Amino acid sequence: MEEKWLVGVDLGGTTIKIAFISEHGDIVEKWEIPTDKSEKGKNITTDIARAIDMKLERLNVNKSKLAGIGMGAPGFIEMETGFIYQAVNIGWKDFPLKDRLEAETGLQVMVDNDANIAALGEMWKGAGDGAKDLLCVTLGTGVGGGIIANGEIIHGTNGMAGEIGHLTSEIEGGASCNCGKSGCLETIASATGITRLAEEGLASHPASLLQEINETKGVITSKDVFEAASKGDELSEEVIQTVCKHLGLAIGNLANALNPGKIVIGGGVSRAGDALLGPLKQYYEKVALPRVVEGSDFAIATLGNDAGVIGGAWLVKTKL
Amino acid sequence: MEEKWLVGVDLGGTTIKIAFISEHGDIVEKWEIPTDKSEKGKNITTDIARAIDMKLERLNVNKSKLAGIGMGAPGFIEMETGFIYQAVNIGWKDFPLKDRLEAETGLQVMVDNDANIAALGEMWKGAGDGAKDLLCVTLGTGVGGGIIANGEIIHGTNGMAGEIGHLTSEIEGGASCNCGKSGCLETIASATGITRLAEEGLASHPASLLQEINETKGVITSKDVFEAASKGDELSEEVIQTVCKHLGLAIGNLANALNPGKIVIGGGVSRAGDALLGPLKQYYEKVALPRVVEGSDFAIATLGNDAGVIGGAWLVKTKL
Repeated sequence: MEEKWLVGVDLGGTTIKIAFISEHGDIVEKWEIPTDKSEKGKNITTDIARAIDMKLERLNVNKSKLAGIGMGAPGFIEMETGFIYQAVNIGWKDFPLKDRLEAETGLQVMVDNDANIAALGEMWKGAGDGAKDLLCVTLGTGVGGGIIANGEIIHGTNGMAGEIGHLTSEIEGGASCNCGKSGCLETIASATGITRLAEEGLASHPASLLQEINETKGVITSKDVFEAASKGDELSEEVIQTVCKHLGLAIGNLANALNPGKIVIGGGVSRAGDALLGPLKQYYEKVALPRVVEGSDFAIATLGNDAGVIGGAWLVKTKL
Repeated sequence: MEEKWLVGVDLGGTTIKIAFISEHGDIVEKWEIPTDKSEKGKNITTDIARAIDMKLERLNVNKSKLAGIGMGAPGFIEMETGFIYQAVNIGWKDFPLKDRLEAETGLQVMVDNDANIAALGEMWKGAGDGAKDLLCVTLGTGVGGGIIANGEIIHGTNGMAGEIGHLTSEIEGGASCNCGKSGCLETIASATGITRLAEEGLASHPASLLQEINETKGVITSKDVFEAASKGDELSEEVIQTVCKHLGLAIGNLANALNPGKIVIGGGVSRAGDALLGPLKQYYEKVALPRVVEGSDFAIATLGNDAGVIGGAWLVKTKL
């Protein structure tokens, strides 16, 4: 029998990533279309269906080649039905994503949370290296998470599992978070959190290398902080220690509960590599039990922007 | 076909609890035998086999009535093989529990960690009320935990999952813990932790009701603390607030990651009931995301000492 292609779709606030992927997880074809958020996102499913048809036509491939669609979306999702309660960044509210996309494409569709799909991608073809107990933490604008136990994503009772960015790091006096709480890990260990900590530190560190960057560019990025730290900048080193302390505490505590074989750190901040992993592991090893530390490896995510579509393909392969 | 009985065995440091249980989870017969820790616990499996045979004889029931044994044991266990790496309280080291007990009884045996088995028991017939995503926290001499996701115990990569007692509550300056770390939740929220906090507070609270108890009995129990708090004792109230703050932070953070439908609190300290759950929920609701709070119910464990044998029976019913 002819090998089928798996379709991975990763919906973001700016673009929709789509890929045809082999049953072995190799990307055959990938491309992006813009996310049309007008009219509360009502055109998105039609756009995806049309993009797939046009690509098939251009490749001169029949639709029967496609095994189904695995799609990651932001927001609160009911997994069984693929119903989106709310996706603020997209404009959806009570949107029957799975039903709509199945009707428009004539293909079977599985939907999951975008962070979960990325974790599945890393487990299958990326840094997760096949580990069946995996903790994925994405340090981007926010902090996202995906938890895999026994090879399956943990969704929890109403689809909220994996909200690692909203673990409370500071029970009193923390910065306020988009979620309405304060002191969340996301306010410290995201790119945004790192910028905040660096800017707050400027007043007490007049000689910091970050002063000039702030004056020139008007903003300090997490990349700036890691670069300045590599030149011995004190403020930057302090910021990184603070980030790694809270991240190490959160990950170490989750590891005591979940005992993952692999801990994958992704997102823009993870590009710092060992400058992040080094101090992070020090705090982690202070928090996690020795036998938990022994069982776990840290790795930087390797799939980058492809993690979502590859995870979507994995869903098609294993669930449809 | 005749209904079979499931055998639940719960191994503790002092006694071994054994029960014959119906396929519906009703206890038909339960009894205890002492734990013989002499000679590094080498007689324990023989004692269990003999106890089962004697009971069958007394009941005039044939061994073919028994479907198998589900057993909870303390220590580090390899689940697939039922091999005990180490069980300090029992004296076992590299002990092939499953193989030994199967050989001695002629029955199939499943082994799991004692805290996990208790969680399964509460899920099946106790406060867990059938919830498939369950967090069980046992506040006894130590703090134990069992995590169930999608109806299955989470074991992790080397059997260490669920070590909730060793989540770090204080990253700096905490009390030292039996595990070798310091600042573990167990040093605060266990019966032992409550005693410690109360005793440490005596110096600064000369008028506390606990002073007399300490002088009369030479020790303050967690029961004393809750009783004194109910009479308005300031030190006792402070201790309970401290316990609930750290317990609420740990459980709330785990709930953000796992999104459990049910959170079951067991162990001796849980007998305080609402005096514990009240302040605990206040802190929990500060830490967990609103939709996570919405999805979760707290309950005090209802099976008491029977949770282990009932969980063992569930293992036999579903896994053998």
